[in-house]
Amino acid sequence: MSKLPNIGTSIFTIMSKMAAEYNAINLSQGFPNFPVDERLTDIVATLAKKEVHQYLPMAGYAPLLSKIAVLVQDSYGRILKPESEILVTAGATQAIFATIQALVDTDDEVIILDPSYDCYEAPVLLSNAKPIHIALNDDYTPNWETIEKVCTSKTKMIIINNPHNPTGKILTEMDFEALQKILLKFPEIILLSDEVYEYITFEEKHISAHTRSQLLNRCIVVSSFGKTFHITGWKVGYLVAPEHLMKEIKKVHQFLVFSVNSLSQVAISEYLDIVSVQEISGMYQEKRDYFSHLLKNSRFKLMPCEGTYFQVASYSAISNENDVDFCKKLITKHGVAAIPISTFYADGKDLRLIRFCFAKDNSTLEQAAKKLCSI
Amino acid sequence: MSKLPNIGTSIFTIMSKMAAEYNAINLSQGFPNFPVDERLTDIVATLAKKEVHQYLPMAGYAPLLSKIAVLVQDSYGRILKPESEILVTAGATQAIFATIQALVDTDDEVIILDPSYDCYEAPVLLSNAKPIHIALNDDYTPNWETIEKVCTSKTKMIIINNPHNPTGKILTEMDFEALQKILLKFPEIILLSDEVYEYITFEEKHISAHTRSQLLNRCIVVSSFGKTFHITGWKVGYLVAPEHLMKEIKKVHQFLVFSVNSLSQVAISEYLDIVSVQEISGMYQEKRDYFSHLLKNSRFKLMPCEGTYFQVASYSAISNENDVDFCKKLITKHGVAAIPISTFYADGKDLRLIRFCFAKDNSTLEQAAKKLCSI
Ligand SMILES: CSCCC(=O)C(=O)O
Ligand SMILES: CSCCC(=O)C(=O)O
Repeated sequence: MSKLPNIGTSIFTIMSKMAAEYNAINLSQGFPNFPVDERLTDIVATLAKKEVHQYLPMAGYAPLLSKIAVLVQDSYGRILKPESEILVTAGATQAIFATIQALVDTDDEVIILDPSYDCYEAPVLLSNAKPIHIALNDDYTPNWETIEKVCTSKTKMIIINNPHNPTGKILTEMDFEALQKILLKFPEIILLSDEVYEYITFEEKHISAHTRSQLLNRCIVVSSFGKTFHITGWKVGYLVAPEHLMKEIKKVHQFLVFSVNSLSQVAISEYLDIVSVQEISGMYQEKRDYFSHLLKNSRFKLMPCEGTYFQVASYSAISNENDVDFCKKLITKHGVAAIPISTFYADGKDLRLIRFCFAKDNSTLEQAAKKLCSI
Repeated sequence: MSKLPNIGTSIFTIMSKMAAEYNAINLSQGFPNFPVDERLTDIVATLAKKEVHQYLPMAGYAPLLSKIAVLVQDSYGRILKPESEILVTAGATQAIFATIQALVDTDDEVIILDPSYDCYEAPVLLSNAKPIHIALNDDYTPNWETIEKVCTSKTKMIIINNPHNPTGKILTEMDFEALQKILLKFPEIILLSDEVYEYITFEEKHISAHTRSQLLNRCIVVSSFGKTFHITGWKVGYLVAPEHLMKEIKKVHQFLVFSVNSLSQVAISEYLDIVSVQEISGMYQEKRDYFSHLLKNSRFKLMPCEGTYFQVASYSAISNENDVDFCKKLITKHGVAAIPISTFYADGKDLRLIRFCFAKDNSTLEQAAKKLCSI
């Protein structure tokens, strides 16, 4: 009697494992393979010798909380109270889990937009609530009409992911207008905005959910230093929430993990003094363009990518297999690992699309592209 | 409408904060204040420059899993399968949260022995299950008769904490005989054994729940590198569970936190090559004895302490105030922070007892003792 009978092993684990087994180039799970900024690793090496090895406060290292308040100040429109509106978490995943567990209750409904990242479902189910999956339009814009139609008094939360993994889509002002209209009609609905790729956007600027001042009293934004600073292994993220919701989230957080890795928090805090987030993530646009250039002569058709370090590609000119089988063959026969997009749909919708992670050094991208162009 | 209306801020946060405010010597929250072993911080400094900054596998860094298998081999009676029976967690708290969330369901009952550490309650409540608090006997041995009496078909889990925080009590072979008798009578009950202080024991040897071979198929043991290696801030623990339960725990773990801080895992793994756990935690007996020696001429009466780095003391010769008020006055008037034991009881039972943490350098213990002896 499993509490999560339909939850299996995360696709990222499956694909990374298979990539390792077959010695394939791993463009599946999203993580950078280039070195971390030396200035950051220098900070870590120096800090290791200092007194940074005991519990930090539950909400996070105070100087880091203050610096996050500065980071989000522009979109939020004011300086947040570090102690009561910001929480440092063991990665964005833990932020999302704690938030859902704290705020979503039995028989509540939570709207999730598919294709969707895989970590939203489990905490909703563990809260005895019901995930309501709504597919994005074919151009990956949210279908606000459909979303409005499913909203009822049971709807407790809408989860958006912006920039969007896996499609790379970012929400526009028009999207936010439509979303706000719905939320103002349903004042009980909480907005959970997963913005972990907020600094990885290209032609269009990312708009944080926090720019909607009318929604601030029920909007929770999650971000990730792992993505922003190429340190996915550190597992340090944060969330920003209004005080009355944060109070509930902290109740869960303190008994879920209590506090977050101390050395990492202090290191990130010091690093924020000497770098700008834009500086660090700015090079992803070149990577996207380079990867797309390298695949120009392949039979893959690349979809638009406005943000994140993921490139969605159609393989329908190559094969009519389902995307899971295609990805398996891509690893075993061609030596490249990718993620089948159908795994991001609750109903397994398969459009013959796969996702490549281009957060890789150029030589890796070149090697992968060579293999992909030969298919 | 809170999901956890009766859960407030953890007593450890409250007391540490108050200690800082009043510049009191902080013997409340449990963490060492002496330097971490240089060999470990050297490893961290060296590793910082290596490729240890991206996601590790969900279950943990493979070499670390293997070394944990060796660590627990003696009590378990065989070498565990690292991949399917061991999970590295973001501290023991996260291990406990994931375990309870994965295995305890609506209307289940979970037996908790009071006084009890404060992280068991919230995940039980979030699972819509019922915590059944049973008080330990006056000598802090479990009252197995009462425990057996409350066991029914609804009982899903018994949580034991051994060595026991806050009382320092460790379970004997006789305790395990009694516990095993109950569990064999109720084959559906899962045993969750919180053994984070397993290497901090004194005259008596710690007996792991894993030594009971008849219970292995439903026994989960949680441990903590934070406690064992004086690195509470790192938030790295682990759990050992039989495969069929681990499968469920991993479903939760992967969407709760996905994986654990990479640098910390690799560092601990390398450190385990050059130290023995006994070597590192062996000095706590001296600390206990020194602290007790320093308080000999005080009006506090010290209770026996068989393990952990906590010393329970009665202040009934000093005051008849309740223990929360006494602890507040101890901070504000006398400059020493401790934990009131009543906060470890669901019913707030107050025996005029407080808990000191003696994981401190000698000079801190001396300064604190001087203040305590003057009361
Ligand atoms: C936590 S593993 C998945 C990493 C990621 O964000 C992705 O590949 O989409
Ligand atoms: C996680 S803060 C509490 C630390 C601790 O184990 C204790 O003081 O009992």
